[in-house]
Amino acid sequence: MRDDIDVLVHEVGPRDGLQSIQTIFPTEGKMAWIKREAAAGVPQIQVGSFVPPKNLPQMADSADVVRQSLEIPGLTVAALVPNLRGAENGMAAGAHQIGVVLSVSEAHNMSNVRRSVAESLDGFSEIVGHRDAHEDYKDIVISGGLATAFGCTIDGKVEVSAVMRVAEEFLKRGADRISVADTVGYANPKQVKDLFDELYRTVGNDVPIGAHFHDTRGLGLANAFAAVEAGVRELDSCLGGLGGCPYAPGASGNIVTEDLVFMLEGMGLRTGIDLDGLLEAREIMERYLTDEPTQGSFINAGRPLGFQPASAAA
Amino acid sequence: MRDDIDVLVHEVGPRDGLQSIQTIFPTEGKMAWIKREAAAGVPQIQVGSFVPPKNLPQMADSADVVRQSLEIPGLTVAALVPNLRGAENGMAAGAHQIGVVLSVSEAHNMSNVRRSVAESLDGFSEIVGHRDAHEDYKDIVISGGLATAFGCTIDGKVEVSAVMRVAEEFLKRGADRISVADTVGYANPKQVKDLFDELYRTVGNDVPIGAHFHDTRGLGLANAFAAVEAGVRELDSCLGGLGGCPYAPGASGNIVTEDLVFMLEGMGLRTGIDLDGLLEAREIMERYLTDEPTQGSFINAGRPLGFQPASAAA
Repeated sequence: MRDDIDVLVHEVGPRDGLQSIQTIFPTEGKMAWIKREAAAGVPQIQVGSFVPPKNLPQMADSADVVRQSLEIPGLTVAALVPNLRGAENGMAAGAHQIGVVLSVSEAHNMSNVRRSVAESLDGFSEIVGHRDAHEDYKDIVISGGLATAFGCTIDGKVEVSAVMRVAEEFLKRGADRISVADTVGYANPKQVKDLFDELYRTVGNDVPIGAHFHDTRGLGLANAFAAVEAGVRELDSCLGGLGGCPYAPGASGNIVTEDLVFMLEGMGLRTGIDLDGLLEAREIMERYLTDEPTQGSFINAGRPLGFQPASAAA
Repeated sequence: MRDDIDVLVHEVGPRDGLQSIQTIFPTEGKMAWIKREAAAGVPQIQVGSFVPPKNLPQMADSADVVRQSLEIPGLTVAALVPNLRGAENGMAAGAHQIGVVLSVSEAHNMSNVRRSVAESLDGFSEIVGHRDAHEDYKDIVISGGLATAFGCTIDGKVEVSAVMRVAEEFLKRGADRISVADTVGYANPKQVKDLFDELYRTVGNDVPIGAHFHDTRGLGLANAFAAVEAGVRELDSCLGGLGGCPYAPGASGNIVTEDLVFMLEGMGLRTGIDLDGLLEAREIMERYLTDEPTQGSFINAGRPLGFQPASAAA
């Protein structure tokens, strides 16, 4: 990680946010948003997902979005892929980081991708193999994502030991980093702290570990704080909490980027991100929305009198 | 504290919530709400405030509400008072606990009650003296509240040393407990943890310490978690987050009782409170509202599959 930031905030709105809503952003809308948010200092953005366009028309232009995003100086361009085919396309487009996610819960993984966890891990190995077979791809970072790590809507409880097992498998198979996700918003902050404590004991402190929280039950930022307390230094979030709505049953938006940045900067942790710039990016994003609501508290309340963001002091 | 609960959730909605909205609840509306919420297991409710009715007509029936609440078995009935006159009335009505709040920030205290902090502390001593002069009042608990302990809309930063000084003064003057409030929603969880760590070092571990958070900038539950991590075992909250609105500038509702209880119970901390009962109380409360919005995530998302509240396991 860059040495001028303490926590890497990884914006996932152009992927996780957009894939959860009906509106299909034109490519220029995605790029206007991504450029403004990168200009605000966001160091990494997941700009798209390499899935069949018939499944997710919102993501059909991902290769184009990756290519245009690569022109933004200093930005780490990340993309999500579901399988080898997606990884081939994502790597060919030039993504700096390829995220591959499986569900720790067998039932959830089967329901999602019709594969067992073991089969998904074999698919992960193929993706690593594809990168390693191409000299041009040697700098591509491959991230192993553990979905439903804190519970599952089909299986309920997910054992910590199962999370540890999948994390170790990812690393054995060549993951450069791992990311742990509360996909369905079940986690509480004690559970988060305990799980990451155990994870660092299991895989050591040298592997970059990210966390991905949804605010489904209002505990998203409490969970983010707990993760940071446990040592996590990479957090996913979504500008304006796009993709979730507090008034819809089962709503499950990601934690809100600007609220997260406000929290971290207030805590003395440098994100390198300018809050005013984030709000401008949010405004640009909102221009392309139709009926979808956005979330967040900082947007309404503003900064406290005398607020000193950590990054400004640097 | 009762030995069958780990964290005391102190409902302040009938005071802090109702005083922040326009609608004036009839006494029977307050009592229907208070009774249902007490039946859900909430151990302590701040049922009113002894202020001049012309200042806060919402609180004009506080003596009556206290008297009726005293008939609820097992409930600790708390009331807020601004001065000796209010304390006389609150004690005469029979409140079990009398809360007296001053602002640690001189400018905020002056603006609020036209007194210096030193004058407010002298007022606190008079209230303790009034209790001590009446044998009948000897079991009344007097709580010293420290408002703007994490920052102030007039002064900005509030020094931790000032918070410690006021806390020590409260205890020297006979406070049975103290309560630390983020009145304007400025706190972040690191600040919360640091302040309570320092407070326990300063006053020791035998004094009950409560915390009062607003969710103005979305960090209310993260701050509550941080307080619990630091050792705090009494938290104020407001059913449905009454009194705040995420879409209004400067909104500043208390943290949401049902979301707080969900978090604590999931963390293995017994509150003695039944979540379904809380939602029923919320429904009763909402019947008396006119245009005021309520907040909260648990109400929409419901409990996770396989959720085991700590209190149910007891």
